[in-house]
Amino acid sequence: MSENFEFKLIATDGMARRGEITMPRGTVRTPAFMPVGTGGTVKAMYMDQVRDLGADIILGNTYHLMLRPSAERVAKLGGLHEFARWAGPILTDSGGFQVMSLAQLRKLTEKGVTFRSHIDGRAYEMSPERSIEIQGLLDSDIQMQLDECVALPSTPKDIERAMELSLRWAERCKVAFGNQPGKAMFGIVQGGDVADLRVRSAQALKAMDLKGYAIGGLAVGEPQDVMLEMLDITCPELPVEKPRYLMGVGTPDDILKSVARGIDMFDCVMPTRAGRHGLAFTRRGKVNLRNARHADDPRPLDEESPCPAARDYSRAYLHHLVKSGEALGGMLLTWNNLSYYQQLMQGIRDAIEAGRYSTFAEETQAAWGRGDIPLLA
Amino acid sequence: MSENFEFKLIATDGMARRGEITMPRGTVRTPAFMPVGTGGTVKAMYMDQVRDLGADIILGNTYHLMLRPSAERVAKLGGLHEFARWAGPILTDSGGFQVMSLAQLRKLTEKGVTFRSHIDGRAYEMSPERSIEIQGLLDSDIQMQLDECVALPSTPKDIERAMELSLRWAERCKVAFGNQPGKAMFGIVQGGDVADLRVRSAQALKAMDLKGYAIGGLAVGEPQDVMLEMLDITCPELPVEKPRYLMGVGTPDDILKSVARGIDMFDCVMPTRAGRHGLAFTRRGKVNLRNARHADDPRPLDEESPCPAARDYSRAYLHHLVKSGEALGGMLLTWNNLSYYQQLMQGIRDAIEAGRYSTFAEETQAAWGRGDIPLLA
Repeated sequence: MSENFEFKLIATDGMARRGEITMPRGTVRTPAFMPVGTGGTVKAMYMDQVRDLGADIILGNTYHLMLRPSAERVAKLGGLHEFARWAGPILTDSGGFQVMSLAQLRKLTEKGVTFRSHIDGRAYEMSPERSIEIQGLLDSDIQMQLDECVALPSTPKDIERAMELSLRWAERCKVAFGNQPGKAMFGIVQGGDVADLRVRSAQALKAMDLKGYAIGGLAVGEPQDVMLEMLDITCPELPVEKPRYLMGVGTPDDILKSVARGIDMFDCVMPTRAGRHGLAFTRRGKVNLRNARHADDPRPLDEESPCPAARDYSRAYLHHLVKSGEALGGMLLTWNNLSYYQQLMQGIRDAIEAGRYSTFAEETQAAWGRGDIPLLA
Repeated sequence: MSENFEFKLIATDGMARRGEITMPRGTVRTPAFMPVGTGGTVKAMYMDQVRDLGADIILGNTYHLMLRPSAERVAKLGGLHEFARWAGPILTDSGGFQVMSLAQLRKLTEKGVTFRSHIDGRAYEMSPERSIEIQGLLDSDIQMQLDECVALPSTPKDIERAMELSLRWAERCKVAFGNQPGKAMFGIVQGGDVADLRVRSAQALKAMDLKGYAIGGLAVGEPQDVMLEMLDITCPELPVEKPRYLMGVGTPDDILKSVARGIDMFDCVMPTRAGRHGLAFTRRGKVNLRNARHADDPRPLDEESPCPAARDYSRAYLHHLVKSGEALGGMLLTWNNLSYYQQLMQGIRDAIEAGRYSTFAEETQAAWGRGDIPLLA
């Protein structure tokens, strides 16, 4: 732990980085995967479980929390950590992404965004300054600038306009955030799938000397190779000594390939959402528990997993729970999936330290490729 | 534990009884409350939590399990204990009650019931013999006879016909069950709200010398005082040395008053169902977490509770989870409610042993009557 927000590199292996962020609320081992705690809860999990899986930091969604229960209410209740009973660091997004994807009647100007809540239609305003204010009320440890993220494909002109606006908002967020030694405000590189725009965005943000940099506007509809190409172009433009966070990404394969390109932090709803829909992530790739092949299978998802959800329950039972719509099905599969993601991150960190990251990535991908255990005879 | 099914009385206080059922899979301290594990899962709970709350036995629903995943499948997977990961005793109902309340196109004859599943419309037959066969496939420790339960109000003629049919089915279930030393088959007293029929039913079942007796057909629409009157009439007709189980009951107040009349076992979906709907049972009565009064309240449900769900989370957070429809809300409130029910049963058992049951009941009711903690100033 530290009084200040600090990032140090422990090892590198090619472009892959093994690092550590220290903050007053705890240390984040990178590369890190942040479970998503949308509305002050990592869905269907107790926070103790999330911590015990090895997650050092979770993500909170500003948009959801500002609407319900409201940032002011969370602040009055002692902040998001106290409210949700998560003692470690929390990163919050700016709210802008969900305003664009979830809110109604959005109107975007230089000043910010006005919109109506998707829950009750109430009108809200979100400026760069208000986003930082809300994240401060939540007492978030790592805060994100407000940005405009365009879905892909988009025209280069739209992408450029949004990227430039995001840069101006980054400046305003930096001023609004001010000097908070134990906390950080990250800028967000935009630029869609246009290499020049990515470079310009990264260089401009680098010049602002922020405490960390996110890469946004990816995994928004483009093929994986476009995303990776953008990382190849963007990461070298970012300062080596600052953490890099790829927002909203992704599959285990996305993570492996992005770490190889220099990314330190990830978040994604995939493990939690997939768990609620009957899908398990395992060493042997994805396993769909809705599939009838599991109905009579007494074997667990993965007998070698350290996670009780993967090790102690039969596939037949998980299949039954999923097919019956029982809450325990989502509870167990979410637990399994977050466990798998954290195991993957631990494997990544160990491999980088051992200087064998590319081998680790190949072995991991090969194991996924071999697929699930065969049916019982 | 015991190789056989045995019941012994440890203490009595008025009509209230403190007893113990021993079976190969464990000991059940009575009066006991059995959490309901409808489809092989106590909804929104891990079985470890259920056990840690002090539940010695859970209930499984034959109707649900026969439809999905099917009794034959559960048997092939090692029985319900193995399937659902509950090592202690399990009591199963006969399936008849749910056939009547949930199934479609029911047809009842002397032979049994034919019906269509509420899930997929498939046709099934359920005879007394088949019900016992299914409960055997589930490897249930305490099995129930198939009976016909009529909703109240009903005509005395309908009630009598169903009671007589239930007696004939009890004889057939007894034959089908045979001699299983470590297990028990209970008969079910019927007779609706007609005192003479209750007495006749109880006497006829007593003459069959079964290992335990349930009282069915109550808490099906009648006022509480009618239910209690039926217990006043029925319990004295049942053998003192056998356990008595009041099916599907009930509220904490129902339990207090039924224990005073000689009941040893209870089951009810109330604590689990209410939990999923935002309602908490506490020492201070029921607390509706949907109520806006909790939105800013940093205090827990009950700071003196041994249950983390009651003790460690703010009412504001619980309110937020419930209003947001988050799974964790149901998980925490179910946990709290089952904990409260088990604490109530422990208090009941201690009070009977101490010879102060009526005082305990009055104090408990008085605490409910005083209501929840006042609003913060």
